[in-house]
Amino acid sequence: MFREKTYVERRNKLKEALGSGLLLFLGNDEQGLNYEDNAFLYRQDSNFLYFFGLPFAGLSAVIDIDNDREIIFGDELTIDDIVWMGTQPTLHEKAARAGIKDVRPAKELKPYIESISQKGGKIHYLPTYRAEHKLKLLDLLGVKPGSEQPSVEFIKAIVNQRNYKSDEEIAEIERACNVTAEMHLAAMRKLRPGMKECEISAVIEQVAQANNCKLSFPTICTVNGQTLHNHYHGNVAESGRMLLIDAGAETEMGYAGDMSSTICVDEKFTPRQKSVYDIQVAMHNASVNALKPGIPFKDVYELSAKVMVDGLKSLGLFKGNTDDIVASGAFAICYPHGLGHMMGLDVHDMENLGEVWVGYNGESKSTQFGRKSLRLARKLEPGFVHTIEPGIYFIPELIDKWRGEKQFTDFINYDEFDKWKDLGGIRNEEDYLITEDGARRLGKRIPIATEEVEQERVRETV
Amino acid sequence: MFREKTYVERRNKLKEALGSGLLLFLGNDEQGLNYEDNAFLYRQDSNFLYFFGLPFAGLSAVIDIDNDREIIFGDELTIDDIVWMGTQPTLHEKAARAGIKDVRPAKELKPYIESISQKGGKIHYLPTYRAEHKLKLLDLLGVKPGSEQPSVEFIKAIVNQRNYKSDEEIAEIERACNVTAEMHLAAMRKLRPGMKECEISAVIEQVAQANNCKLSFPTICTVNGQTLHNHYHGNVAESGRMLLIDAGAETEMGYAGDMSSTICVDEKFTPRQKSVYDIQVAMHNASVNALKPGIPFKDVYELSAKVMVDGLKSLGLFKGNTDDIVASGAFAICYPHGLGHMMGLDVHDMENLGEVWVGYNGESKSTQFGRKSLRLARKLEPGFVHTIEPGIYFIPELIDKWRGEKQFTDFINYDEFDKWKDLGGIRNEEDYLITEDGARRLGKRIPIATEEVEQERVRETV
Repeated sequence: MFREKTYVERRNKLKEALGSGLLLFLGNDEQGLNYEDNAFLYRQDSNFLYFFGLPFAGLSAVIDIDNDREIIFGDELTIDDIVWMGTQPTLHEKAARAGIKDVRPAKELKPYIESISQKGGKIHYLPTYRAEHKLKLLDLLGVKPGSEQPSVEFIKAIVNQRNYKSDEEIAEIERACNVTAEMHLAAMRKLRPGMKECEISAVIEQVAQANNCKLSFPTICTVNGQTLHNHYHGNVAESGRMLLIDAGAETEMGYAGDMSSTICVDEKFTPRQKSVYDIQVAMHNASVNALKPGIPFKDVYELSAKVMVDGLKSLGLFKGNTDDIVASGAFAICYPHGLGHMMGLDVHDMENLGEVWVGYNGESKSTQFGRKSLRLARKLEPGFVHTIEPGIYFIPELIDKWRGEKQFTDFINYDEFDKWKDLGGIRNEEDYLITEDGARRLGKRIPIATEEVEQERVRETV
Repeated sequence: MFREKTYVERRNKLKEALGSGLLLFLGNDEQGLNYEDNAFLYRQDSNFLYFFGLPFAGLSAVIDIDNDREIIFGDELTIDDIVWMGTQPTLHEKAARAGIKDVRPAKELKPYIESISQKGGKIHYLPTYRAEHKLKLLDLLGVKPGSEQPSVEFIKAIVNQRNYKSDEEIAEIERACNVTAEMHLAAMRKLRPGMKECEISAVIEQVAQANNCKLSFPTICTVNGQTLHNHYHGNVAESGRMLLIDAGAETEMGYAGDMSSTICVDEKFTPRQKSVYDIQVAMHNASVNALKPGIPFKDVYELSAKVMVDGLKSLGLFKGNTDDIVASGAFAICYPHGLGHMMGLDVHDMENLGEVWVGYNGESKSTQFGRKSLRLARKLEPGFVHTIEPGIYFIPELIDKWRGEKQFTDFINYDEFDKWKDLGGIRNEEDYLITEDGARRLGKRIPIATEEVEQERVRETV
């Protein structure tokens, strides 16, 4: 946890932004994997962490602005809890660390909310992303699952705080990024042809765990990098292939790192791999060089797409005017996702509050295939932390589908695309902080260019 | 997956046991960790796995005995799914592997169930352990959360199948046990004084993952072994301490291994540690030697407690008649849990169906502290697979509480217990199959006696 002062100030700022009403925070509970007591590794809700700091199950909190009260609802441990789960500070002691003196039993939350409602007080709550929260809203407020009406004021106020990272947050994110970089470096050094994907992912995750970090998301470690979120680790990394890794660490406080790398299984890339890889690196570098306060991130995204199209035109994959190819959405045949996303207490920061607020500042999103997956578009501001992760993929199913539908035949050379169907996918990813006059990479540098990757591949392991 | 025949036969046996009605199986969905798309590693419901074999989210199934139909409800993948999650067989193809030909869209489940209900058909469903299942029962059957009435017939029929492991299941469990043993052996070889608990747990979990296994439960790896389910890994393993590990692998098919070991942080145990450790080993060996068909497991548990009390009397910790000390529950001050539990597709097999059926065959359970945590009590039968895991713990909070309450002062020498408060906890655990004439350990042997542990501690790592 940060110091008590941090949480007090965060709540004060939030109260000021909202002005009135009751703000309800539903903490996360334990979740049963295959029965109730075999729980997934516990993760507290990020908004609860941000404003109350306590990473424990069974808690709810309210900020009752009109009555000037901040209350944590939860129950103290029993002797059975202590025998099974160990001794801990009391809930009162824990709450005091976040500057909260008013702690009440869990069962008092419902009558408290009812009494506020009866007096006509407004109850602000956030969108749900867990079934347990839907059940709680049903119980507390009678809100039927599927008919939740989260408070837009509450969402906007939180986004407007969490999007700007403080110095102590940046230091914590950088710690996550440094562990994340070591995860990728370990994989580059240990990978040998014939190893299984699961053996490499085991190396990656061991680094996170040995640093007392969790994963900020399920590891992608695949020779089929063309599948964007591939969690299957049963293939062998055969000579001649590339291995795409997307993995990140989450610190004990809950802050995320998120990096990707694409590694030649052999010591060197083939000339064919390198010809596409160099284009991806050009996209990456052009994007990073464009980062500065005031530039809309969607412009950086469009730039990355143009760099890609120009590069792939030289390989004969696209034809026609670059701007038209990008505007039409044809480029998404091999770049079907965005350029980056906000990162903080969530690896896609505040995704549960809605991209339209976090990444678009309320402006509307494109519905075009590929472009609709851009999570961040708004003008960049100092304090924003986000990823840069352009990619190039050859997805046989998508190529065949678009060819069959005669999509973008003026722009796409399908016969040429067919020749690349066995290449897989390439993505490299770093994390950046927007500063007053530009941007700063967070965490140790991982190899991005093919030469850097090749050097790291043959470095002796300690 | 096993062969199609296995699933067809399992369902036929279940239909025969129930005779009539509609059996509803709610598969597990993805669960959001901190937002919807950042999901925990997926785990299918074990009953769904047992009868339908498919480890995919978004599925439900019914066995409609009266109308002689077996149906899987779920939706086919879209092109967006394929781009993000990869190409897969169609749901029809997957279902065929489990011998199911009737596949219908997810939205048809509710009207199907309604039509059966309207005709007076009985809908059998199982206890819930996830909030998502409570929401589904609310939607499908109008069952309010907290007022579920699971079908006891359905529960008993499943328990009566899953408790008896087939040869192909035993082979799969043994595979999990072999990986589990390697996890413990790796820890014994890598542990050095001054390492952090998280560094050792990282070694343990790497072994599971490199074998393409998941964990069957969250790893316990702690110098505070007296806390039974301790998931904190932030301490340093200091010289002079013991490290208690409880960890297991789960195979791709979902079968679990579960072993514990207690390791000296130094190369040798101290004489003081050894004096208690040897008593734990005697409990373990006496329990294993008693295993055979027909013996009630609760008798084996009582035996293990008596062996412990006899041993600890010689150290001056208990006084009085051994049988009385065990019968009174006084022994639980340092042995506050059971001796073992069924193991299969769940590490505590079928815990969500209720211990009273799985481990007690409908007989009532004790409510006494310690004895109430015995999960398995019934007469052992060939085909049962269960753990053996006696333990001895010095839990300062419990010792102080009982002393303050003057509990069992005729049996417990509190002044002597006070001297051992810094020892921690000792548990070793193996997995056994009950055979026609005795029992067989599943998986490679891990060191149990102090001499074996010491030998393994100094073995060179490969």
